[in-house]
Amino acid sequence: MTDHAHALTRAEQKRVRELHSKKGRREHGAFLVEGRKSVLELLASDWPVLAVYATHDAAPGFHAAASARGLEVISVSTGLLTSLSTFEHNEHALAIAGQRTASLQPLRAGELTLALDDIRDPGNLGTIWRLADWYGVRQIVCSATTSERSNPKVISASMGSFLRVPVVEVDLPLWLASQRQAGTPVLGAVLDGESAHAAGKPWREGVLVIGNESQGLSPAVAAQLTRRLSIPRFGQAESLNAAVATGILLDGWRRQLAG
Amino acid sequence: MTDHAHALTRAEQKRVRELHSKKGRREHGAFLVEGRKSVLELLASDWPVLAVYATHDAAPGFHAAASARGLEVISVSTGLLTSLSTFEHNEHALAIAGQRTASLQPLRAGELTLALDDIRDPGNLGTIWRLADWYGVRQIVCSATTSERSNPKVISASMGSFLRVPVVEVDLPLWLASQRQAGTPVLGAVLDGESAHAAGKPWREGVLVIGNESQGLSPAVAAQLTRRLSIPRFGQAESLNAAVATGILLDGWRRQLAG
Repeated sequence: MTDHAHALTRAEQKRVRELHSKKGRREHGAFLVEGRKSVLELLASDWPVLAVYATHDAAPGFHAAASARGLEVISVSTGLLTSLSTFEHNEHALAIAGQRTASLQPLRAGELTLALDDIRDPGNLGTIWRLADWYGVRQIVCSATTSERSNPKVISASMGSFLRVPVVEVDLPLWLASQRQAGTPVLGAVLDGESAHAAGKPWREGVLVIGNESQGLSPAVAAQLTRRLSIPRFGQAESLNAAVATGILLDGWRRQLAG
Repeated sequence: MTDHAHALTRAEQKRVRELHSKKGRREHGAFLVEGRKSVLELLASDWPVLAVYATHDAAPGFHAAASARGLEVISVSTGLLTSLSTFEHNEHALAIAGQRTASLQPLRAGELTLALDDIRDPGNLGTIWRLADWYGVRQIVCSATTSERSNPKVISASMGSFLRVPVVEVDLPLWLASQRQAGTPVLGAVLDGESAHAAGKPWREGVLVIGNESQGLSPAVAAQLTRRLSIPRFGQAESLNAAVATGILLDGWRRQLAG
């Protein structure tokens, strides 16, 4: 056992809790990864990890993975771990991850880039991230007004997908304009477009833009679309949740690639 | 103006706030409907409404719809409305709705009943409700362990769909067994079933069962399935959010009905 069973100093505790806020995450260039599964996935990845905290009971389960990275697991009480965590209750583990910058890759045939125009709800952003990972989307771009990617609710809802699918912040209207000029299809989810079920003109690659939860696509972004897609409606609900709409469109994209 | 601009008594305020808890909702047989759009949809429906509260600014916008039901809009300050509401901020309106019981209808050709096996997250339940409404699912059944339907987060996430799609609580394994015995297909979303994209054997009607967010289908429910469906995966995420999976499967169902 290399358990580091020391009591955390008040200064150390404060430093971890500063990562609960956007300001703190920016200042420290770090963010929290919480829960057993996410911490294990983080340790197994090549993402930078600065520290790992676990409860006395759970700590042994993280030793091997932490050691492989030259890290010690700092073992604390469940009460202390919960107080360091943004979870209501955390009886497993919490890690501090460093920031990593990603760059955009050119799009290849049969590939899709997901573009997020002002997705505000952290749960939606995390769920969309996980969906991109499920459907093999290699990268995501987002507007500056999109929910902060290192928000603990985003990281938690992404279920480890933040480790696999890079998100790059761009000036979305300008970036879409450059894609369009390069001949890349720019598809957008709207309420009054052509049916995403129509089999006539499949879309195999391009950029798929998802708009804000209540406002939809901003006018500057909508102006860059080369194709406007809608999910057919058969009942009376007025709209779909943004993450659900993303899932349905990505599923339709994969059906087309196979068809 | 028939504005009822009286100050609410402490007892009245307490009665409204009791509806924030499950216990209070059960005792009063009533629940909260919050926000401008949901209150307007409620008033326009035939659902029982017991009271309507709105801010001084917003109250005039609710008069016509309330009057048509013989109700007065009780006009209050934004501070008081917010304190009566479960929203962090409510500057529009809040209504108290009565409970209504629904009964199950026999399934017709080309119809789907959605069955929820222990969906615990109120946001997921509301989103699934809205999806059922979008895709023209006429009814939902759920297990007793499913999130309470009158929870304000569920009502809010359902975006008015609670007015249109009845949810009936059943003993799910027993009810599914009876459906199966009657020859109704019982389809379930699982991680290791046949591909939901496979075009070979379409499913046009039946019961579609969605399992718990982290546990999936309970064994007693899984034992009743006549067909096990999976959403094909193309990347590395381990699972999909329950509401997203429901949306993808309902979209696939409608593609099949059209195909």
